[in-house]
Amino acid sequence: MAKAAPSERLTRIPGGGGRAVRLARGQRLKLINTHGSQVVDTWALSSADHSEYLSMEQTRRMLFKLWPQQGDRLYSNRRTPMLAMERDTSPGVHDTLFACCDEWVYANYGCPPGHANCRDNFLRAVRDLGIDPPLVPNPLNLWMSIPVHDNIGLQIGHPVTRPGDYVVLRALMGVVLVFSACPMDVTPINGPDCQPRDVHFSLSARRV
Amino acid sequence: MAKAAPSERLTRIPGGGGRAVRLARGQRLKLINTHGSQVVDTWALSSADHSEYLSMEQTRRMLFKLWPQQGDRLYSNRRTPMLAMERDTSPGVHDTLFACCDEWVYANYGCPPGHANCRDNFLRAVRDLGIDPPLVPNPLNLWMSIPVHDNIGLQIGHPVTRPGDYVVLRALMGVVLVFSACPMDVTPINGPDCQPRDVHFSLSARRV
Repeated sequence: MAKAAPSERLTRIPGGGGRAVRLARGQRLKLINTHGSQVVDTWALSSADHSEYLSMEQTRRMLFKLWPQQGDRLYSNRRTPMLAMERDTSPGVHDTLFACCDEWVYANYGCPPGHANCRDNFLRAVRDLGIDPPLVPNPLNLWMSIPVHDNIGLQIGHPVTRPGDYVVLRALMGVVLVFSACPMDVTPINGPDCQPRDVHFSLSARRV
Repeated sequence: MAKAAPSERLTRIPGGGGRAVRLARGQRLKLINTHGSQVVDTWALSSADHSEYLSMEQTRRMLFKLWPQQGDRLYSNRRTPMLAMERDTSPGVHDTLFACCDEWVYANYGCPPGHANCRDNFLRAVRDLGIDPPLVPNPLNLWMSIPVHDNIGLQIGHPVTRPGDYVVLRALMGVVLVFSACPMDVTPINGPDCQPRDVHFSLSARRV
C-alpha cells in the first residue's frame, strides 16, 4: 500500500469495484494507484445539476490534448471548468478515447453474463447516492495507455505507472466524483497479468 | 455543385445550418461536400429509442481507430452497429475528438451572443421532428482534420477534401440522422478563408 501521511485517511476501492464521493468546491481528492497497474475510470457530475458532467470531448477541445496533464483544468459539457488536475506523480499517460467497459464488451469477448464492468459500477455508485444519471458519459480513464499509430490507429497498452503514484483532483464546483477500478481481466489494460487490483483515495478537509 | 445522377434529388443544407432526416433500416444517405471545404457534424439517434445514440467513444473502441473509414461500421452507446460508412470518395480524414461548437466556444472567442453553432443546429433539427434528446452527443465530424502530435497534442487542420467528394452512410437500424454544416468562421476548420459553405445530400429509396 502507498505511504500515507499520518493524518491521511485512506479509503479502499476494491479491484474491479466502484465508488462515488461528493466533493465541495475547493476540496481535493488524492487517488493512489496503490499497485501501479490499475486503470481507474473517472467521472464527475455537477452536484447542482446532474445533467452537467465532465466531458472528454470538451476537455480535449479546450486543452488541444488527447488527455489532461498536471496543471490542466477539466471541462464540463457546458465548457465550464469542473476539476483541476493539480498533481500527477505518474508518467502522465491517461486516456479519454475509449468508452468504459460494459456488459456488451464482455459479451463480445464470450464472457458469461454478469461480469463486473465499469458502466454498472458507475450506475450503482451514483444510484447509491440517490442520483439517476441521464447518461453514462465517456470517462477519463486514469493511467490507461492507448497509443495512437499513424495518426489513426489505436492500441491497448499497459499502464506505465509505478506503485504509489497518485493524482490530486481539486473540485472547481461542487461535484460527485465517481471511480471504477476497471474490472477488465480479458485484455491487458490493467497490466500483462490481466489482474484488477485495489486503489485508494483520501479527501482533504472541506472548503480548504 | 457535385454531379448528380439524373434520378438523384439533392437536398441543400445551407452553410452554417442544420438538418435532420429519418432513415429506415437499409436506407442509404449520400452526403456531398459540394465545395470541398465544409466540415459536417453528424449525429444519429435510434428511431426506436432516442436514448440510444451514435457513440464516438464506442466506435473508437470497437474499430481501434480515431475515426471510421470506408467499410467500417459505427456503433451506438450500447455497442450496436448503427450505421455503415459504405463509401468515402474523400481522402478519408475525419474527426471524433472534438465536441461540436456551441454558444460557449463563440463566447470564448469574443463573438457576440447569438452566433450560429452546431449544438443549437442539432437541438433545433431534432426538436423540429418532435424529439427531445436526452443529451447532445459527441458528433462524428465529417471532413474535419485534427492531427495528433507526439501522441497527445491536437491541432486544427484544414479539410483535405475535394469539391464533390461524398460519403455514403447506410442505416443498420431505423435512425434519425442529424447534420450541421459547421458555422465556425473564427478558426480555419472550414478552410483558410473561414467561410461555411453549403453541402447537399440525397436519399436512396426506402427498404433497398
